[in-house]
Amino acid sequence: MTNPTSVAVLGLGNMGTALAAAFLTAGHPTTVWNRTASKAEPLAAQGAAVAATVAEAIAAAEVTVICLSVYDTVLARLDGVDLHGKAIVNLTNGTPRQAREASAALTARGASYVDGGIMAIPEMIGQPSALLFYSGATETFQAHRELLDLLGPARFLGADPGLASLYDLALLSGMYGTFAGAFHAIALAGTEGVPAVEITELVVPWVTAMAAVLPSMAAEIDKGEFLGEESSLQVNKDGLDNILTASWQQGISADLLAPFHTLIARKLATTDGSVSVNSIMELLK
Amino acid sequence: MTNPTSVAVLGLGNMGTALAAAFLTAGHPTTVWNRTASKAEPLAAQGAAVAATVAEAIAAAEVTVICLSVYDTVLARLDGVDLHGKAIVNLTNGTPRQAREASAALTARGASYVDGGIMAIPEMIGQPSALLFYSGATETFQAHRELLDLLGPARFLGADPGLASLYDLALLSGMYGTFAGAFHAIALAGTEGVPAVEITELVVPWVTAMAAVLPSMAAEIDKGEFLGEESSLQVNKDGLDNILTASWQQGISADLLAPFHTLIARKLATTDGSVSVNSIMELLK
Repeated sequence: MTNPTSVAVLGLGNMGTALAAAFLTAGHPTTVWNRTASKAEPLAAQGAAVAATVAEAIAAAEVTVICLSVYDTVLARLDGVDLHGKAIVNLTNGTPRQAREASAALTARGASYVDGGIMAIPEMIGQPSALLFYSGATETFQAHRELLDLLGPARFLGADPGLASLYDLALLSGMYGTFAGAFHAIALAGTEGVPAVEITELVVPWVTAMAAVLPSMAAEIDKGEFLGEESSLQVNKDGLDNILTASWQQGISADLLAPFHTLIARKLATTDGSVSVNSIMELLK
Repeated sequence: MTNPTSVAVLGLGNMGTALAAAFLTAGHPTTVWNRTASKAEPLAAQGAAVAATVAEAIAAAEVTVICLSVYDTVLARLDGVDLHGKAIVNLTNGTPRQAREASAALTARGASYVDGGIMAIPEMIGQPSALLFYSGATETFQAHRELLDLLGPARFLGADPGLASLYDLALLSGMYGTFAGAFHAIALAGTEGVPAVEITELVVPWVTAMAAVLPSMAAEIDKGEFLGEESSLQVNKDGLDNILTASWQQGISADLLAPFHTLIARKLATTDGSVSVNSIMELLK
């Protein structure tokens, strides 16, 4: 066996800490850096080297994994640091454009750049239930795939560094929709004193069952034929009318679901109510 | 065994047809009525009696199950019909207020009234995966529980006829949130040519995993202590900033998720970013 790859982790929030712990557990020499140094203490106790500066962390490792809050911070922290010959894996959440710009800027400074997106909460890191998207420098990804697989199953999406972010934000969109729907459900049930835990116990299996209908809806969207046999615009307009009206009657905000109602109403203004609700996709483009 | 209960079904959309078919399959004498009589033909071939009028249908049965599009239609169709001694189970989607008003009006005319909500798509009727909420006339529900269980597992929520609608609309809210999130995901991925089916294959397990986090969020909401250790306002603000910005950069509407972002931004204006994202519940009330 060759020596294990040395790795640096920049950013020790809950997620960065989980990433560093996964490398340490697998026996990789791990250097960590965080703006507030005290966050590094638990990892130091597990054997991490604590770097005083970003430059020191990057110099110490073959691969640097970055997990900061936003891209602007990433670029600010790397300012003036020697990146020549270094592999940078940036798991900071951002937009496809930010990923492409970071890739261009850091590649020009001699780094090889892989962008990534983490589909997991920190507790899931290192588990088969986690999923990490990567895109960008293909050879660099392949060279370090075994290292990155320690964080959870890796899916490489291609050489365009913006793709990992695109997929990441798409999945996060699905999550925020689900959270928004659940928050509305909890607020509505709460108007009659139903505890959040009680309605959520019912919401979770129901939402899970309805999520399983999404692939057939997606197939219809890809075809672009909105036949509506299952779930027509009019049926969904009636249902959302009732949700909005009940929300107002019960005294809560309907803000989180109002845009869905608006899109259906807009579509109904120009088409027959018997077409599928999936036809509102045409209004998002 | 006593004679099977006779049942009438008013409204033969996809759902009403599935309800009537479940009763017929179980051997109950079933009378059906629909505004457009041709919709009754497949059920007549399965043994249903087809009534020419609502009054005729209701007169023929001990229990009348109603599945029309909206409450106004229910009340209009029942206008002038003799309801004395009849059990009415209204599964039409509506608001708690509509259910309470219908209950009062029809009870005053001699009916016993049970309101209900169907948590299923028509294909799920009669399956263990379906769930039906009921509330209202308790003795009537109990007397006909076996009949109603043919449609799927029944959950009785109490004597208040508005509760079935409240729970129904809460769960539907969860579903619409999930659909909204998935539609946004599909639109965003579509900007780079990713087929809806491909991104949806990834969205479904991710959303299912994230839905499993909801019970712990609900427990925090019930406590009213928003500690934010897992998922802070600021982290979620950053994530939604990226979703909205990427959506605009990629040329799609961000309408479906914008209100979630607005609620978080509003909450951040008056509190510390380290508080849990669940704290936005306070803005929905």
